[in-house]
Amino acid sequence: MNPPHVSLIGVPGLPMVQPGDDLPALIAQALARADLSLQPGDVLVVTSKVVSKAEGRLLDLHTVTPSTRALEVAATTQKDPRLVEVVLRESTAISRMRSGVLIVTHRLGFTSANAGVDHSNVGMGEDWVLLLPEDPDASARALRARLEALTGVAPGVVISDSHGRPFRLGNVNVAIGVAGVPALWDQRGRADLFGRVLRATVTAPADEIAAAAGLVAGQAAEALPVVLVRGLSLPAGDGAAADLVRPQEMDLYR
Amino acid sequence: MNPPHVSLIGVPGLPMVQPGDDLPALIAQALARADLSLQPGDVLVVTSKVVSKAEGRLLDLHTVTPSTRALEVAATTQKDPRLVEVVLRESTAISRMRSGVLIVTHRLGFTSANAGVDHSNVGMGEDWVLLLPEDPDASARALRARLEALTGVAPGVVISDSHGRPFRLGNVNVAIGVAGVPALWDQRGRADLFGRVLRATVTAPADEIAAAAGLVAGQAAEALPVVLVRGLSLPAGDGAAADLVRPQEMDLYR
Repeated sequence: MNPPHVSLIGVPGLPMVQPGDDLPALIAQALARADLSLQPGDVLVVTSKVVSKAEGRLLDLHTVTPSTRALEVAATTQKDPRLVEVVLRESTAISRMRSGVLIVTHRLGFTSANAGVDHSNVGMGEDWVLLLPEDPDASARALRARLEALTGVAPGVVISDSHGRPFRLGNVNVAIGVAGVPALWDQRGRADLFGRVLRATVTAPADEIAAAAGLVAGQAAEALPVVLVRGLSLPAGDGAAADLVRPQEMDLYR
Repeated sequence: MNPPHVSLIGVPGLPMVQPGDDLPALIAQALARADLSLQPGDVLVVTSKVVSKAEGRLLDLHTVTPSTRALEVAATTQKDPRLVEVVLRESTAISRMRSGVLIVTHRLGFTSANAGVDHSNVGMGEDWVLLLPEDPDASARALRARLEALTGVAPGVVISDSHGRPFRLGNVNVAIGVAGVPALWDQRGRADLFGRVLRATVTAPADEIAAAAGLVAGQAAEALPVVLVRGLSLPAGDGAAADLVRPQEMDLYR
């Protein structure tokens, strides 16, 4: 028996993505140029950044008028009131704020710094910011469908974003959009090595995949926004990143 | 240029590990039998379970007398008072408890359910539990040194454990012991794609590696407790899992 082997391959040659670009076509072309034909079971991890850019989720802060609430929060956090206004529009609640820090519940349900509103790597000048995709699960489903139409193979798609974490230092990529792979894998009821039934083992393969891709993608000048993951053994399933949001009443870890 | 490629390879053929076993020798033999000679830059991810077993961190609950405090906590959590006693001995504080739930600050600093005390996969009968290694960073350093002596190559070592998470559902493996690889990677000060200096990008490659290995290792009958990670591009560095513990006063995510 061959040992199980998962490959994480950075897809080279993706051009700088611009608003309105046909991202699945760019990805299909980059895969073809790199001789990486999609195979059944392949998963593509795509950073939210390029998905957002293709979707035109850029905003010029000059066009933003901060609300009274944004001005108050900006005073507390020492952040640009226009940026705070954008963060608040993307959020349902403020989780924590103090000088330099604004952690919110994103309208998509997860908790993150600045609602994922990104001031770096935008490439449009200092006063532009990039928002997360409007509906990253829908973006993932659309990428999957278009890539199937273009290549004949429907890859799993995970849209990743870099998150800070409670209890642990260092950002790790998580899945904020999922299609064609399970977000969660409920292994309760399976027998362990000794035939004892596993008690509480639900894993989060979509987050594991996003984290793994972070080992290849890099964050800075060598950034590779698309990583091909090949060789996974996951149960069939079509999850959504929404599955990964822990309802507050179940959140005993906080 | 070849695209960046990271391989996650489950190391087959490791025997059931028993207390007192020479784990690095078993790993070196399994690698040799699978024709997986270690190469410079390789990282081995080893589940805490086999490290604990080799270190004899098994405990017969019949030998445990619960303290008054353990009896109280057991009444609240509806758990076996002897198990609770073991959990409390491994902990510095209780973070949250209610029926069926006991989340603590482990003496090693991280927050986890039941202090990582494991009642499944022990293979010694219902009343035995497995504790985390006494000092997983030291265990990782010892594994690295012994593997270097046995094979001529010093691999990076990450000892992994499966953790539940605040905010997000599903367990993901994290690093609880690290040697020969950086636990954190501080990319602040590096320029992003547009020459703008990255603001707050510290990533946690040791946790990314642990999570990635979880895609191969599985949890149940097909469990592969050792995963070889090959092809990483990380900065040189000899981290420790202790680096990954977010000091409570810095924890704005909670």
